[in-house]
Amino acid sequence: MVLLYYANDRDPALWIDALKAAGPEIEIRQWPDTGPGEEIAYALLWNPPQELFRSLSGLKVVFSLGAGVDHLLRAPGLPPGLPLVRVAEPDLTSRMSEYVVLQVLMHHRRQRAYDELQRHREWRPLPQRAAAQVRVGVMGLGVLGRDAAAKLRTLGFQVAGWSRTAKSLEGIECFAGDSGLVPFLNCSEILVCLLPVTEHTRGILNRSLFDELAAGETGPVLINAGRGALQVEEDIIAALETGTLRAATLDTFVREPLPPESPLWSHPDITVTPHIAATSDPGAIADFVIGQIRRFESGGKLESLVDRDRGY
Amino acid sequence: MVLLYYANDRDPALWIDALKAAGPEIEIRQWPDTGPGEEIAYALLWNPPQELFRSLSGLKVVFSLGAGVDHLLRAPGLPPGLPLVRVAEPDLTSRMSEYVVLQVLMHHRRQRAYDELQRHREWRPLPQRAAAQVRVGVMGLGVLGRDAAAKLRTLGFQVAGWSRTAKSLEGIECFAGDSGLVPFLNCSEILVCLLPVTEHTRGILNRSLFDELAAGETGPVLINAGRGALQVEEDIIAALETGTLRAATLDTFVREPLPPESPLWSHPDITVTPHIAATSDPGAIADFVIGQIRRFESGGKLESLVDRDRGY
Repeated sequence: MVLLYYANDRDPALWIDALKAAGPEIEIRQWPDTGPGEEIAYALLWNPPQELFRSLSGLKVVFSLGAGVDHLLRAPGLPPGLPLVRVAEPDLTSRMSEYVVLQVLMHHRRQRAYDELQRHREWRPLPQRAAAQVRVGVMGLGVLGRDAAAKLRTLGFQVAGWSRTAKSLEGIECFAGDSGLVPFLNCSEILVCLLPVTEHTRGILNRSLFDELAAGETGPVLINAGRGALQVEEDIIAALETGTLRAATLDTFVREPLPPESPLWSHPDITVTPHIAATSDPGAIADFVIGQIRRFESGGKLESLVDRDRGY
Repeated sequence: MVLLYYANDRDPALWIDALKAAGPEIEIRQWPDTGPGEEIAYALLWNPPQELFRSLSGLKVVFSLGAGVDHLLRAPGLPPGLPLVRVAEPDLTSRMSEYVVLQVLMHHRRQRAYDELQRHREWRPLPQRAAAQVRVGVMGLGVLGRDAAAKLRTLGFQVAGWSRTAKSLEGIECFAGDSGLVPFLNCSEILVCLLPVTEHTRGILNRSLFDELAAGETGPVLINAGRGALQVEEDIIAALETGTLRAATLDTFVREPLPPESPLWSHPDITVTPHIAATSDPGAIADFVIGQIRRFESGGKLESLVDRDRGY
């Protein structure tokens, strides 16, 4: 049994070692050293090169090295009908929630303003609402969105959620579909985006969406830890300039690495992080992937299968 | 029935209005306009002046305008035996946990390092452990410490707690007393201090304590949101210089407001906030105080009574 590994932006040795440790019975090969292509039954990929799928005639399952799968769905030559699995395991989910809670609290508790006061050696308490008075909206209620929403709720925030299909979650006001979007935005001061990129969501974080956000005393604030392609970066800058947005935290970008000349880097109201919201632990991901392969080989059902029509 | 209000560092109008709204049947006076001192049955105080207690012969209960009571216990003329109540209500507790979770996550997720990278327009993901691999120690397991510990646990951290008397809390490794201190410190990489100031705890955050902290990959880190008198500020700076501490977040100080000439303001590894971790909402505090007065007047027991011998 052979598993092929490829990712364009990570240290391969770490991942190869983790996969070997998790599945000693499985042979791990690394693109482009595939050997005979028909021997490759499984592939764990991130941003695969154009020609990758051409020679792999024996593929049974493809795994995405992360929660997003847009990089696979747009890959040329991806065989139709081939099962795609995205990584959804507790380590990745928990890390994403750490990031979301941190960034929401930084805005809510005015940490940037206090940093500025510290630079001026100025002792000045600022007005502060309690979390219970602040409305946070989470876009995307998959495994990641639900966990983040629940943890924000535990901290006391009023949390609303929006998803494509209707959901019901305890303590979270849920909105769904096109008709639910504006009402959802109207009650979100801090907007957390964890959506996948699909034909429906590409560029959704744009000026007309920002216009619908609630101001409150803190907002409107945008936190995008989903995908760069969800956001229109010129619109974010324009909205910050007019006050339509008060601040933004961005972990993903249209182009990654974010080019040094991007104006996002130096905007005083933007926090930039280098796509680290939920960087997975190789060991945890390897356990998940090897576990799925064993399950599949013994006739079990794959978990976290991607619905190609929905795009996630 | 008359309630006297005094605080040396807050906007009195906000508090007077909140007290009047919560207890319309109670007359609110403000120091020094006490009228006949013997008419004052209740007092809500923060850092009362030396002479305050001299003329108040009819006092039945004193309330502290916050969780700490050291400012009352050291006040000259405080009548022995007079019941002291400290504010312990959900709004204040929840705000403190917001602050603690924010500051723990900032250190854990290396936000300061990412801020620095952003200033240099440098895209560089840093190694990152999951919360489940990081040990946070909470000193003080009263209402505030227990809530913060539980919320840190929800986010996935390994949490230990230390208190004067033995406690048992679900999911938290509890240590107690002098003999438990070093074992507790040895398993704390990020130390959160929420202790009261007593004769036992004054200056407890000193060099010899820092020496016992666990390094891990993140720490040792000190977060003091308790009282300034708990910390030896020269020792914090010295420990940061030698690497005994990696970073510190301080919300309270030996002298407040922190003087502009203090070296703490400009230290690159210290985050200074101006005693805002749990600034109470006047409405919530007023509801608590007036509720306690009504309870007491109708023969009920006061909540959150201070044990003067313990000092909290």
